Amino acid sequence: MSAPPPRVLSEREPIAVSMGDPAGIGPEIIVKAWQQCVGQVKAGAAVQPLWVAGHQSFFLNAIKMCAPGMEIEVLATAADAAQFWRDNPKNDRLVIVEAVPQPCAAGVPDPTGIDIGVVSQAAGMWAARAIEVAAHACMAGLAGGLLTAPIHKVALERAGYDYPGHTEFLQALAARAKGVSPADVPVRMLLANPSLQTVLLSIHVSLRAALDLVTVENLFQTLQMTHDHVPPLHAALRGESRKHPKIAVAGVNPHAGESGRFGDEEQRVMVPAVAAAQAAGIDVTGPISPDTVYMRARQGEFDVVIAAYHDQGLIPVKYLGVDEGVNVTLGLPFLRASPDHGTAFEIAAKGVASPDSLLAALKWLQRWSI
Amino acid sequence: MSAPPPRVLSEREPIAVSMGDPAGIGPEIIVKAWQQCVGQVKAGAAVQPLWVAGHQSFFLNAIKMCAPGMEIEVLATAADAAQFWRDNPKNDRLVIVEAVPQPCAAGVPDPTGIDIGVVSQAAGMWAARAIEVAAHACMAGLAGGLLTAPIHKVALERAGYDYPGHTEFLQALAARAKGVSPADVPVRMLLANPSLQTVLLSIHVSLRAALDLVTVENLFQTLQMTHDHVPPLHAALRGESRKHPKIAVAGVNPHAGESGRFGDEEQRVMVPAVAAAQAAGIDVTGPISPDTVYMRARQGEFDVVIAAYHDQGLIPVKYLGVDEGVNVTLGLPFLRASPDHGTAFEIAAKGVASPDSLLAALKWLQRWSI
Repeated sequence: MSAPPPRVLSEREPIAVSMGDPAGIGPEIIVKAWQQCVGQVKAGAAVQPLWVAGHQSFFLNAIKMCAPGMEIEVLATAADAAQFWRDNPKNDRLVIVEAVPQPCAAGVPDPTGIDIGVVSQAAGMWAARAIEVAAHACMAGLAGGLLTAPIHKVALERAGYDYPGHTEFLQALAARAKGVSPADVPVRMLLANPSLQTVLLSIHVSLRAALDLVTVENLFQTLQMTHDHVPPLHAALRGESRKHPKIAVAGVNPHAGESGRFGDEEQRVMVPAVAAAQAAGIDVTGPISPDTVYMRARQGEFDVVIAAYHDQGLIPVKYLGVDEGVNVTLGLPFLRASPDHGTAFEIAAKGVASPDSLLAALKWLQRWSI
Repeated sequence: MSAPPPRVLSEREPIAVSMGDPAGIGPEIIVKAWQQCVGQVKAGAAVQPLWVAGHQSFFLNAIKMCAPGMEIEVLATAADAAQFWRDNPKNDRLVIVEAVPQPCAAGVPDPTGIDIGVVSQAAGMWAARAIEVAAHACMAGLAGGLLTAPIHKVALERAGYDYPGHTEFLQALAARAKGVSPADVPVRMLLANPSLQTVLLSIHVSLRAALDLVTVENLFQTLQMTHDHVPPLHAALRGESRKHPKIAVAGVNPHAGESGRFGDEEQRVMVPAVAAAQAAGIDVTGPISPDTVYMRARQGEFDVVIAAYHDQGLIPVKYLGVDEGVNVTLGLPFLRASPDHGTAFEIAAKGVASPDSLLAALKWLQRWSI
């Protein structure tokens, strides 16, 4: 097995931020996060360059409410933003790259006419375009990583982008750029908080369909991608130097099937896939009873758990709260992380949204390797 | 809907404790727990009367190791134990009711010949008999509740008791006592820690089979049993007086199916069952996205979550550690709780096992209603 060389974001590479659905909390948490970064600059620390794909009008309200006095720098392209940061390494303005959607039948929707907290096609169009501009900048080498603020799937769908989430949208963009089909860009979702990392075997499908995706091929490929791209969290916390993570595979069935008593996925799929991965030099154990493996990983026994389906991994990652949760996509040709919460329409533009999860995702990008 | 009258264990009713597999940590954690109870007596507090079904030889080693000086009182029957406690309300001896298994082909296995940390038919025979004696005492009104120490399923199976766990074993005993089939004694498993309670729609079946058990009838019956028997945890913690719990139903599929996009159990089963339960006066909300409902319940929004399958509920209950976890059976004709861990053969008789989960289960019984 040939692992791709690790790639770590340099401190001077800009991160592209997609603003998310402008009717949600995206612009507000970006402004609050940038304000904290600026505070670090003023305290003498180096700041990671970043710029936001979107439109200034969505940010001016958030600045007035949460960060009066913050200045903005509006630029036309990602290349301009990269140049701006080279020229102004100590910049404290919020850099915005205008990402104007393709006109629909009614023309380009007016950014000042979008109602906060309401699902709309117009907001979906702006949100989608911000993702495209930021992702293309990453693929062109103009940004070193992508940080995505939350989107609303129904708004996106109304805007003509029918994806269950960012992961599939970004997979499609990467495939189009490579001239291949999305299936040829295998991606996996990694969820993480400060003490637990989990990679999912499947995401936005029914639980019944997820069971059919528990295959030797899927698990083996997931183990390879996890081995290559997921950092050894607990080893790093203990100060040990390890290149690759210690992986646990969670079973599908109660008690991991108790030797086939309840369900056969463990014996039929997981045992052979784990054996093949071990033979390929991957540090992996399992299948382990799902009801204790996440507790054991949190306590430091494993750096990452392979979840057999979406909620098996997401329930423990979110259990202590979403403020420090991060969602990372493995398999894309660029680094990508996002906060582990949604658009929170109900609290948008009220000044109460927390930037903590977005900041956790930013920190993640800064220490990640691809 | 006619709810059974609530029944709360009185402070003077004895609790029957089944000793668990004698090759595991059961006797040791019972001795340690009783030592803590005795400490409370000496400090002037009232102690809940309790007695252990088992054999003295299993306890003498544990006492020598963990509680030198502790005295025992060996009695022949549950009636003797109840009388002993009436005569000695300030007793500080560990009361043992001898529960001798029916002889197998080789006779009654010698209790002094059981190897610690090893699965055996003999240990299974002693463990099973302890459960029978304790459960029958509860059904005869000689004990007010049952506390079960951990058993080993393979040992039990070798002893001729082919049950996946305590829950099904006790269901069978209750059915036999009533002269009905086990299906006529519907039971549900409740798992709890100090901030989360969850009742499971199904337990020891494959995940694929569990999906088939997500039916309107099952969910409605589970909601009724939960409404009738589960205490309003968070309301009580906040000092609010409520008779019944605030219940949340967790969806089956990611994001609770997103209106049928991934899976139809929510629309087809959960929506009508929840509506019927609400019409019957039950305080229930859902289906709610599984990946956030446990976090929300932990934070106090719900007193109990109905888990759509075993691991959905057990993963969050165990995530912070099993030391305070309690496993309760709803639907039996008596109160029953147990610690949320296994026999831990690997640390048996080493003096390091923690009685915390057993003590949490004891506290549970003391404030429970049936």
